[in-house]
Amino acid sequence: MTDLVTFGESMLRLSPPGQQRLEAIDSLDVHAAGAESNVAVAAERLGLDTVWLSKLPDSPLGRRVTSALGNHGVEADIVWDDDARMGTYYVEMAGKPRGTNVIYDRADSAVTTATADELDTDRIAEADAYYTSGITPALSETLLETSRELLALADDSDTTTVFDVNYRSKLWSPADARNTLEGLFDDIDVLVVAERDARAVLDREGDAEAIARDLADEFDFELTLITRGGEGSFALHDGDVFEQGVFEADEYDTVGTGDAFVGGFLASWLDGGSVPDSLEYGAATASLKRTMPGDIALVTPEEVQRVVDQGEQSGISR
Amino acid sequence: MTDLVTFGESMLRLSPPGQQRLEAIDSLDVHAAGAESNVAVAAERLGLDTVWLSKLPDSPLGRRVTSALGNHGVEADIVWDDDARMGTYYVEMAGKPRGTNVIYDRADSAVTTATADELDTDRIAEADAYYTSGITPALSETLLETSRELLALADDSDTTTVFDVNYRSKLWSPADARNTLEGLFDDIDVLVVAERDARAVLDREGDAEAIARDLADEFDFELTLITRGGEGSFALHDGDVFEQGVFEADEYDTVGTGDAFVGGFLASWLDGGSVPDSLEYGAATASLKRTMPGDIALVTPEEVQRVVDQGEQSGISR
Amino acid sequence: MTDLVTFGESMLRLSPPGQQRLEAIDSLDVHAAGAESNVAVAAERLGLDTVWLSKLPDSPLGRRVTSALGNHGVEADIVWDDDARMGTYYVEMAGKPRGTNVIYDRADSAVTTATADELDTDRIAEADAYYTSGITPALSETLLETSRELLALADDSDTTTVFDVNYRSKLWSPADARNTLEGLFDDIDVLVVAERDARAVLDREGDAEAIARDLADEFDFELTLITRGGEGSFALHDGDVFEQGVFEADEYDTVGTGDAFVGGFLASWLDGGSVPDSLEYGAATASLKRTMPGDIALVTPEEVQRVVDQGEQSGISR
Amino acid sequence: MTDLVTFGESMLRLSPPGQQRLEAIDSLDVHAAGAESNVAVAAERLGLDTVWLSKLPDSPLGRRVTSALGNHGVEADIVWDDDARMGTYYVEMAGKPRGTNVIYDRADSAVTTATADELDTDRIAEADAYYTSGITPALSETLLETSRELLALADDSDTTTVFDVNYRSKLWSPADARNTLEGLFDDIDVLVVAERDARAVLDREGDAEAIARDLADEFDFELTLITRGGEGSFALHDGDVFEQGVFEADEYDTVGTGDAFVGGFLASWLDGGSVPDSLEYGAATASLKRTMPGDIALVTPEEVQRVVDQGEQSGISR
Amino acid sequence: MTDLVTFGESMLRLSPPGQQRLEAIDSLDVHAAGAESNVAVAAERLGLDTVWLSKLPDSPLGRRVTSALGNHGVEADIVWDDDARMGTYYVEMAGKPRGTNVIYDRADSAVTTATADELDTDRIAEADAYYTSGITPALSETLLETSRELLALADDSDTTTVFDVNYRSKLWSPADARNTLEGLFDDIDVLVVAERDARAVLDREGDAEAIARDLADEFDFELTLITRGGEGSFALHDGDVFEQGVFEADEYDTVGTGDAFVGGFLASWLDGGSVPDSLEYGAATASLKRTMPGDIALVTPEEVQRVVDQGEQSGISR
Amino acid sequence: MTDLVTFGESMLRLSPPGQQRLEAIDSLDVHAAGAESNVAVAAERLGLDTVWLSKLPDSPLGRRVTSALGNHGVEADIVWDDDARMGTYYVEMAGKPRGTNVIYDRADSAVTTATADELDTDRIAEADAYYTSGITPALSETLLETSRELLALADDSDTTTVFDVNYRSKLWSPADARNTLEGLFDDIDVLVVAERDARAVLDREGDAEAIARDLADEFDFELTLITRGGEGSFALHDGDVFEQGVFEADEYDTVGTGDAFVGGFLASWLDGGSVPDSLEYGAATASLKRTMPGDIALVTPEEVQRVVDQGEQSGISR
Repeated sequence: MTDLVTFGESMLRLSPPGQQRLEAIDSLDVHAAGAESNVAVAAERLGLDTVWLSKLPDSPLGRRVTSALGNHGVEADIVWDDDARMGTYYVEMAGKPRGTNVIYDRADSAVTTATADELDTDRIAEADAYYTSGITPALSETLLETSRELLALADDSDTTTVFDVNYRSKLWSPADARNTLEGLFDDIDVLVVAERDARAVLDREGDAEAIARDLADEFDFELTLITRGGEGSFALHDGDVFEQGVFEADEYDTVGTGDAFVGGFLASWLDGGSVPDSLEYGAATASLKRTMPGDIALVTPEEVQRVVDQGEQSGISR
Repeated sequence: MTDLVTFGESMLRLSPPGQQRLEAIDSLDVHAAGAESNVAVAAERLGLDTVWLSKLPDSPLGRRVTSALGNHGVEADIVWDDDARMGTYYVEMAGKPRGTNVIYDRADSAVTTATADELDTDRIAEADAYYTSGITPALSETLLETSRELLALADDSDTTTVFDVNYRSKLWSPADARNTLEGLFDDIDVLVVAERDARAVLDREGDAEAIARDLADEFDFELTLITRGGEGSFALHDGDVFEQGVFEADEYDTVGTGDAFVGGFLASWLDGGSVPDSLEYGAATASLKRTMPGDIALVTPEEVQRVVDQGEQSGISR
Repeated sequence: MTDLVTFGESMLRLSPPGQQRLEAIDSLDVHAAGAESNVAVAAERLGLDTVWLSKLPDSPLGRRVTSALGNHGVEADIVWDDDARMGTYYVEMAGKPRGTNVIYDRADSAVTTATADELDTDRIAEADAYYTSGITPALSETLLETSRELLALADDSDTTTVFDVNYRSKLWSPADARNTLEGLFDDIDVLVVAERDARAVLDREGDAEAIARDLADEFDFELTLITRGGEGSFALHDGDVFEQGVFEADEYDTVGTGDAFVGGFLASWLDGGSVPDSLEYGAATASLKRTMPGDIALVTPEEVQRVVDQGEQSGISR
Repeated sequence: MTDLVTFGESMLRLSPPGQQRLEAIDSLDVHAAGAESNVAVAAERLGLDTVWLSKLPDSPLGRRVTSALGNHGVEADIVWDDDARMGTYYVEMAGKPRGTNVIYDRADSAVTTATADELDTDRIAEADAYYTSGITPALSETLLETSRELLALADDSDTTTVFDVNYRSKLWSPADARNTLEGLFDDIDVLVVAERDARAVLDREGDAEAIARDLADEFDFELTLITRGGEGSFALHDGDVFEQGVFEADEYDTVGTGDAFVGGFLASWLDGGSVPDSLEYGAATASLKRTMPGDIALVTPEEVQRVVDQGEQSGISR
Repeated sequence: MTDLVTFGESMLRLSPPGQQRLEAIDSLDVHAAGAESNVAVAAERLGLDTVWLSKLPDSPLGRRVTSALGNHGVEADIVWDDDARMGTYYVEMAGKPRGTNVIYDRADSAVTTATADELDTDRIAEADAYYTSGITPALSETLLETSRELLALADDSDTTTVFDVNYRSKLWSPADARNTLEGLFDDIDVLVVAERDARAVLDREGDAEAIARDLADEFDFELTLITRGGEGSFALHDGDVFEQGVFEADEYDTVGTGDAFVGGFLASWLDGGSVPDSLEYGAATASLKRTMPGDIALVTPEEVQRVVDQGEQSGISR
Repeated sequence: MTDLVTFGESMLRLSPPGQQRLEAIDSLDVHAAGAESNVAVAAERLGLDTVWLSKLPDSPLGRRVTSALGNHGVEADIVWDDDARMGTYYVEMAGKPRGTNVIYDRADSAVTTATADELDTDRIAEADAYYTSGITPALSETLLETSRELLALADDSDTTTVFDVNYRSKLWSPADARNTLEGLFDDIDVLVVAERDARAVLDREGDAEAIARDLADEFDFELTLITRGGEGSFALHDGDVFEQGVFEADEYDTVGTGDAFVGGFLASWLDGGSVPDSLEYGAATASLKRTMPGDIALVTPEEVQRVVDQGEQSGISR
């Protein structure tokens, strides 16, 4: 039986080597990345049996994405489209004051036309949990409708629904995001939201606990996770609150940290872990991710457990 | 005064290093390429004063293209678009039996909305010659209309109009191409067409001379150039015919050979060279191009002249 | 149901970029490669449902191999060993007169201790066909015994057994190879052998047909395939003989050509193709392989069919 | 009308990738760099219309430099020399305690014979400002004389003269530098000098303000800029003093920081900005430069303004 | 006359570029490395005349190692083995919390069969000093015996014997290491041991001084060096104690730091330097090593002296 | 005792990867190369004990050259110069019609001031043979005088003198070369000259034999070797003539082929081989060189002998 199904877009991520500028590139590093596939990979690597649903162009570029997932054992259940384009994005990594900059080139990608009818929705109905993010409904009207149907289907099937708000300012305005996303919240069991987005997009106020209680009260979430960047994470579950700090990391590539946290959390929680243990497991996964190139948390359960047990580790193991 | 203005799209060309497969790429080489900018660069490097008109996204990706042209001294007179996407294409190079394969990802790129109104059309009116290709009107209805207006404007301004049919089967059908392109031919002074396309797209028959005479008679071209791949080129001018073979080359990257030929031809012909001398100059430019990575003919007048004078050269100059 | 199970070693292949010498390397390209996994990948990509059985170190290096297979959808059913080493080999590619040179570093690798008991032999019993090669029994006494047991098991289960002699002079002498391999032939349905090895190792004489008839008579093979390098291949099946030439290719990396041929042949033949059609399909797969870096035939059914239909293809598809 | 003309040498900068040692290199990264061309590029990118005057070998290496400038839109007005050599320098980047080390190989380069007669000095006469540095007169007797003539010409033409002392201990002694440079100061309107060089080369004492007042009094500078590394910059203008701190940066490559500061300052100041605003603009430009490989400040006005407005930025913009 | 002879294994070190994971590698950087050859190179570069004794496969891989040493002028006096394998190890570099991880693949390498008979032991008898480490006897029974014989020989020849405990947990247990190594201590004049290993392996207690006095008393060492990572080093010599801090370094690759320290120490001490001066020289060598890729301290005497004189240096020397 | 001493310049060779153009380079491959050091390396690798005399800058760049030679076991006996520059050259590799192009940047390099007084001339007096080329006296007046003195010294010491004309049109005119070189011929025992240079520079006529006899008669050479590119080589020795063809090679980098031939020839001839055997050995060495990047013949005696015995070899040895 499948533990976790995710649905969303995975793109080609094109990034200049080192800290070169996009304007001056002669070559680009290529990764496959997307919130929902990142979560699936992290969860699969950490022990869950995961499936990723999506729609891709039937081309070498589409296969580049599925082979990246097959690498890690995630089953990609894909609607192949002969004509549609591949979503891509460019990311220029830099420290301050430049900051890392993303240029999306994902309009009209194959996934934007994915409907519930063509997807293998039985996979969701038969799974323990279903994860998707606020990026997906932002991509097209069709995807908003599909997101809605899949969440409803999961809800009807007693599949736990997990939703990460994942607000992207380059896709839509805070107001549009709020209007749309809150319309989906009734079918959601577990909400994940960055404290920053809870304020700016969902218009919530107060500290993390106040925000979590406010959201949980309004939408009746079973579990509300607030991520707070360098300050760690916060969970509200059955009225109890839990806090988790971050494990310090020598950062190499921070893109995908949030997905690694969610993937790690779910790997533990869906396996029966307690909320605080799962927060810690997610935090350890996220800290390891930050040491690696690419969006993917290329970790093993042993490594995550070692960070949980020993905290940061430097030095040489030989 | 400007010698040559070209109008069309230049894209990011993304290609795997060596002969790797796109499906398995971890990095992509980046070049800027497009028929009309390729011709502009070759002509500028070989002595003409050239301008390239286009529309690009106002982003690092758009600047990647203009800086590539600035490299060679071509003046890029650009309409910058804050929102539109950058045209890209993927090219996987391979020998037989795989063959080189192109995947276009250029739909809805910035240039597809370029109108005659927003472009600096005075540049065309003031130039000696105007070059564009059959790729441009294939990209959008707007570009077909713009192509028509610019050719008409050039014709009205006594600017010599040069048009390369450049049929691309991944953009449109032969029938669509024929219907559209022949509607533009009345305003064209110099037609360039591959013998293969003259047959398959323009429905012409007979040998190169028969084809050239048929086209010249029907559309009253001043000069008709037929390119024939490894068999060289053929010209019909004022009723006279000229043939030119190819200069043998150790091939490294054949993409852009046709544009190099046209750029070299125009550099000579617009500078007062005879048709046969210009064919030879174009052929030498094309042979040098084939030895280099990228679509661009990165050549000097001295090198082209040396090939014209001495033919192929191997060995080490030291 | 599984179409094809293979059993053998897959190693890390370490090769200098370009044609550098191993003695002077500062970096090495890494691929995962082995005859039986190469065949599995080619067959899977061309439509079969394949499983690869093996034993690997439980380390990032072992996972490097399984993720390479997961890339292509092959299911790797692995015995993980906490302590054993990873088999590796170095390959220095060069043209004449240097020639390509392989240095094996595979002694005592994890697979050399693989026993029938620990492998998931049900996979073989339930499959249509089982493939292994003469490399595997050459690696250790244990593997010779395991090879014997797995072939016997397949034979008992009515799983078609396919065996490629694949003689490696750096692993054993011709005499040792003959003695050992002929002891396995009774359980084999389909023998694949290079004409060169049939002579030098199996001591056969005459032309390809004579060799095939001699072997088929002695060991009662259902199908005997003789590969002849640039001269193509030859098959003896139910007394009928078939010949197949090669499709010409611009060679980039020739390692793995034989495995691509077998993988392509099996993809067709196990799918119900006739022997001559399957020879042609294998030849087309092999010719495509030669244009790519790495041991793997990174092909699609459409590409192989196109080569079968059109023969060699050069030029640019755009 | 041209806003800024600069004159000096641009060299090939050859640097080992990463932090490798020059002694052990197998490849070198190539950039084009020189104080005066760096300033021109930064200023052009930030809105000025700039021209760079120089003398280069008429070779692919010389064109490598001009194409690098053409990239950014700087007009290179070059005296081409058929025989002279290209100036180069090697730079080995390292953190402490190794430090970054430069090996110049610029003796007898093309520019060392550049005379005022052969340069297009009208460009200076017609420009708003002229910038050169103390590196140029250090390179040859001819260049000292040329520097003198060009400054005098600029002074006569009411072109604002800007001079950066830019002391290089590998080119000359402090005493030689002082003797030579102070002889040029009468024709200089704006002096830029590192506090460290003001002390060690120009023999000034006291704090930055004392040094600035001492120099301004002696040589009647309109504006005196003192750069102080990590402590920021200081300006004395019309008797008023201004201080500017640095914007914190995650350093990637610090070579060219000073030139970026001057280029940013001039882009603002020559456009009518106040001295304190221009100091801030220069500081923001310099901080962005530190995040990039190469000597060039590959920035846009929007980016510099964002740093001015928001200070350091980390995180991901998506 | 030879100043220093070392004996031990040098391996191919294979490491992913950047901070990639071994599991996902497509290429590996190659260095030659081993404690005893690292020490020989550092000492040779810093002025000693050194010889490295070892046994290697007679193959391009073996020559890859000797050419790396020949690079630096170390004389490699090698027993060449036609059949044996090359020792290799994989190292994945990462910051915390991942940490750097080493995977050894050195079992049954050529050196493991090296006997005193086949090595050129006269080189040891004629040298001033002989260095080996606790890694060597851990590799095979043969090497333990050879280590014992060579130390005895050196002792008999009045060659100063220097021994670095260099405990490797992936080679043996602390108890095995202690039993074996203490059996060698009687022939050792200078012991080098990490404080951490003195505690965990040699079962010593107390602070560095207590440990040193305890060891020196028991085994009658002439000189006892305790290395303490970031806290520097400690020496006990003729009853006197000396402490040395570390020179701060921007770390790039920390593997080989200990060997650089020993090589630097010996270069000074065997040249007549005092113990405290030699500690400082070793510390400076070690700090420079940390700024470079690879295990080797690619330094000059001038650079080490500059660090000793000036401490850390950042900035640009030009 | 030393078998062979060579004297001349070794430079940094900077070349674009692949077949990129120098004008567009972002990185350069680095090799160390020079006729006399190339010959020394080939001869050392093939069994001679060789010494290379030269003068180099005392810098990382100078050490880059000596470490490259140390790689191969050649002893570099160097005069180190604190101030002088490193000779470099750029080489752009290309097939026809572009051809390979060399740009020298070697004027005023360290070696140009090398005098017989400062070189360790005893090495020549004590050696069996001394080799230098016509490049060396072309570099400076000082080097012409030094070349003359060293040849005279060798002649006086009964050291066999070997001289390769090695005409370089970018260093001097044919007339200058002839005048200068013929003045050195009296002290030369073995002359090597390309047939092309014998005609164009030395003004000889007729076929290879006529040229050889003409030169040998006039200058009393013991052995006269005429190299003829693709047509092989020719020798005149004691009145007897010998011809040798080339071994066919898949060319990768042809620079250094002539030096490989001479190095191979001398390795055999100085070891007592006959002239025809030595020609064949040289030809085999040269053919192997052509398959490798860089100027150096990175070969072993076994490989050369295998080519001599078997001729060209393709295929895979495994």
